[in-house]
Amino acid sequence: MLRAGETVLDNALGFDAEVTFIGTIHTPFKERGQCPRQGDAEAGPDCTITAIPELEPALAGLERFDSVEVLYWLHLARRDLLTQSPKADGAVRGTFSLRSPLRPNPIGTSRVRLIRREGTRLIVRGLDCLDGTPLIDLKPDRCSFTVQARAKGLD
Amino acid sequence: MLRAGETVLDNALGFDAEVTFIGTIHTPFKERGQCPRQGDAEAGPDCTITAIPELEPALAGLERFDSVEVLYWLHLARRDLLTQSPKADGAVRGTFSLRSPLRPNPIGTSRVRLIRREGTRLIVRGLDCLDGTPLIDLKPDRCSFTVQARAKGLD
Repeated sequence: MLRAGETVLDNALGFDAEVTFIGTIHTPFKERGQCPRQGDAEAGPDCTITAIPELEPALAGLERFDSVEVLYWLHLARRDLLTQSPKADGAVRGTFSLRSPLRPNPIGTSRVRLIRREGTRLIVRGLDCLDGTPLIDLKPDRCSFTVQARAKGLD
Repeated sequence: MLRAGETVLDNALGFDAEVTFIGTIHTPFKERGQCPRQGDAEAGPDCTITAIPELEPALAGLERFDSVEVLYWLHLARRDLLTQSPKADGAVRGTFSLRSPLRPNPIGTSRVRLIRREGTRLIVRGLDCLDGTPLIDLKPDRCSFTVQARAKGLD
């Protein structure tokens, strides 16, 4: 169902690469209307990210970071919208000028505060996605890195 | 080729969803050794992101943002490393405690400064990926959003 002014791709785009779901995100948000527009890494509710058991060794050391970037697959989102009108103001905007879940590659990113790790489970704050959302990646947040080295030979 | 202490998954993980390449990233970094460890959104070189023509309407309004989040597919990366030893110190770390390109879903994220948009081309600073890297998403950076509304009924 489209809102006034929304436009879609005439032809579906092809697929070029494949994603593996590496775990599941558990939040208190059971329906779309309950999801905050953006997570709150300080005051938001505790959420749980559970990685699949075979990836436990890959989580080693993540607990050293307060701030973690989480990537997830917005599995319920349509992918063909070019322009969207998600807000009450009725304005139509290009999909890439929004953080809407509806996009050609429905990947969400959040920066969360890592409260603690218990094996393959992470307790975090700052997520805004639906309960049951598939996890696709975890990384230390960029902001946790200090001054970076410049590339050699390119100055 | 593995370095000392590095470990890999015994069995490949399956695939669960598909990604569409929506454009191409052009940087001055032609080989892996030239890529900076992290992009510099202020002093880094100008790079170009070109979206595929059918997505031009979806870029409308992105030029209102100074800071844009870019997601890309690290197409040369192996995906089976559980632990890695990427640094000169010889320490072995879990894949998810690193921002290394080698990960189960080889998706990179960068926050870039948007200098200007020319149709389907964006001129940006702050990328650290190889020339020719496939683009998978563009979003206004989270930090560009101001105080968010709390979810209704969840306080």
